[in-house]
Amino acid sequence: MKFTVNQKELLNNLLIVNKAVSNKNIQPLLSGIYLEAKEDNKLIIRGTDMELGIESEVSAFVEESGKIVLPSKYFVEIVRKLPMMDLELSTEENSQIKIIYGSSEIKLNYFEGSEYPSIHDFEGECVLKIKGDDLVNAISLSQVVVSTDMSRPIFTGILLEIKNDKLNFVSSDTHRLCYTYIENIEKNVDRWESIVPAKSLKEVAYIIHEDEEIEIHITSNRILFKSRNIKVTSRLIEGKFVNYEQVIPKEFSTDINIIKKSLLDSLERAFVLTRDEIKSKLNTVKFNIKEKVLIISSRASEVGDIYEEIPIYLQGKEIELGFNGKYLIEILRNIDGEEISINLNDPQSPGIIKGNQGNEKFIYLILPVRLQ
Amino acid sequence: MKFTVNQKELLNNLLIVNKAVSNKNIQPLLSGIYLEAKEDNKLIIRGTDMELGIESEVSAFVEESGKIVLPSKYFVEIVRKLPMMDLELSTEENSQIKIIYGSSEIKLNYFEGSEYPSIHDFEGECVLKIKGDDLVNAISLSQVVVSTDMSRPIFTGILLEIKNDKLNFVSSDTHRLCYTYIENIEKNVDRWESIVPAKSLKEVAYIIHEDEEIEIHITSNRILFKSRNIKVTSRLIEGKFVNYEQVIPKEFSTDINIIKKSLLDSLERAFVLTRDEIKSKLNTVKFNIKEKVLIISSRASEVGDIYEEIPIYLQGKEIELGFNGKYLIEILRNIDGEEISINLNDPQSPGIIKGNQGNEKFIYLILPVRLQ
Repeated sequence: MKFTVNQKELLNNLLIVNKAVSNKNIQPLLSGIYLEAKEDNKLIIRGTDMELGIESEVSAFVEESGKIVLPSKYFVEIVRKLPMMDLELSTEENSQIKIIYGSSEIKLNYFEGSEYPSIHDFEGECVLKIKGDDLVNAISLSQVVVSTDMSRPIFTGILLEIKNDKLNFVSSDTHRLCYTYIENIEKNVDRWESIVPAKSLKEVAYIIHEDEEIEIHITSNRILFKSRNIKVTSRLIEGKFVNYEQVIPKEFSTDINIIKKSLLDSLERAFVLTRDEIKSKLNTVKFNIKEKVLIISSRASEVGDIYEEIPIYLQGKEIELGFNGKYLIEILRNIDGEEISINLNDPQSPGIIKGNQGNEKFIYLILPVRLQ
Repeated sequence: MKFTVNQKELLNNLLIVNKAVSNKNIQPLLSGIYLEAKEDNKLIIRGTDMELGIESEVSAFVEESGKIVLPSKYFVEIVRKLPMMDLELSTEENSQIKIIYGSSEIKLNYFEGSEYPSIHDFEGECVLKIKGDDLVNAISLSQVVVSTDMSRPIFTGILLEIKNDKLNFVSSDTHRLCYTYIENIEKNVDRWESIVPAKSLKEVAYIIHEDEEIEIHITSNRILFKSRNIKVTSRLIEGKFVNYEQVIPKEFSTDINIIKKSLLDSLERAFVLTRDEIKSKLNTVKFNIKEKVLIISSRASEVGDIYEEIPIYLQGKEIELGFNGKYLIEILRNIDGEEISINLNDPQSPGIIKGNQGNEKFIYLILPVRLQ
């Protein structure tokens, strides 16, 4: 194997692929990065921990094709520190690859590439095409209310559901739920449901180019995202997602409009006082919704009290109820737009948060907590 | 106690003072920040862990003088999150302070201020005046080769020595030594020696304004740095520093000039290969100094090899020797200037690194390691 590649282009793609590599993997081959130099002057770079897999394609001048696996923790750092110039890589006897830059050279021990798992190429039973920025947006909205508790794996994933000509994204950590969707997608099936690990989708959102069209292939146990030169694949989570349509109320007796930043700032101050409260762990903040003002208050006996007034526009009934401030903060931090709506029914029923500029396609559902 | 102070000015000074506060302190009073509102419209803010102490003075509109101690972990975060406006602080009954901002308010529990330790005001036996930027520069050069091993406390400090009309700064971690000095200082004694904890000096360098003149007061067990509105005090380390003048060689048989960045880049690449070598822990890099070129090479049997050529200007003898690459990297990263000189005698004797633009006032001494 012998090829020449630009340092910067190699590095950029190694950093992407490396996100799927775990240095803690017990299989040495999986803590490495797979390189395949092809005769059509393409270099294929792959990494996987078997759950997530990333493949990238880079232009290279290939004199001799071949495939090897290099230890990622050394190879990525070495390339990062090499000068920005063309690098010549060639395999030598005794299982070393030689990297030549100017009059200097580095030799790295490699593994044979033939044993490396191939998980990137399959045809989907369900095939979709969507815009990159729509996908990134839906993932980042859903990501916030995902659970990390592996004992209930369904809640560590995001439901991707095709229904009524929409691609719905639903996630929940059992305290909160997020619903968002993408319209006008190209697809080959009318109905489909898969639960994708949120961790994998986070990497997808980080890696893909927002201005490209993304092709998605789904089978019963894997999903593949394909853009021009990058492929990301992930295993799916088995199981049945909660029936989110039953959970989201359709009508509300209280509807307020509020400047998002005012509410977020106020909740963050309240959280400083309550974050160490061990007893309740609820970071309870009291909402007292009046005609023109939302009164936010909280008390942490060891630390102190907070009392804030925020102007609002109210339609419907005045109401007093409690929320976990931390849960609200995480949602608000993740929402664009200046104003939001909060819709409520009573102090025991879930409320929803949505944008109120008319074109926001998301709903966060949040459960009130009992006031002492 | 009742006063009004600008949020931004209060926050900036709290963040400075907070550097001396340890939230792990078993004395609750010392995990707090001392506030004293004085009748001359000054607010004094203090923090200390008894080793390091920082005091700052802020303008405030004081209606009622007084002193209290507030829990730093809550107070600093609350002020950070308050809107940028004037804040009115007033003590209430039941040991709470009320912070009013607009139509909102926060109440925090406080401790009485009368018990808070006073460590900032003393006259020095030795009194110096030096320029802030000279002090910052000397501290940052010395800082690199300080030890963190508390079993030999002297090497965790930096020697401040007045001798021959200079203020010398000397530090060592027993593998390396740094010598630098400040000339033309105002002082009231001809000779003086103190060992100041490096940790304290690091904070001093971070806090003081480089364009101010700094007054330094030293006694047998404490040092005080005074600028216009900030005072930093530290305990001193007891003991006698090594005789550095005996250790630094005066003559050398090999002298090379080299572009600092070329050497640093090369050492950093070599370090990626050797950083996990458990056997030696020396990160050994071989220097082969020839007429016009320095050949740097290193081998890590589990990972690979590196061979680099760097152009140099040599005066004196060719030589081959080994260094701990990590130790050199730390020194080089900390030096300004494009070119450096390295002076050597033989593979067993210490070499020195210095700037070669003629106006650099520092010497780093470094010990070679044996080549296998």
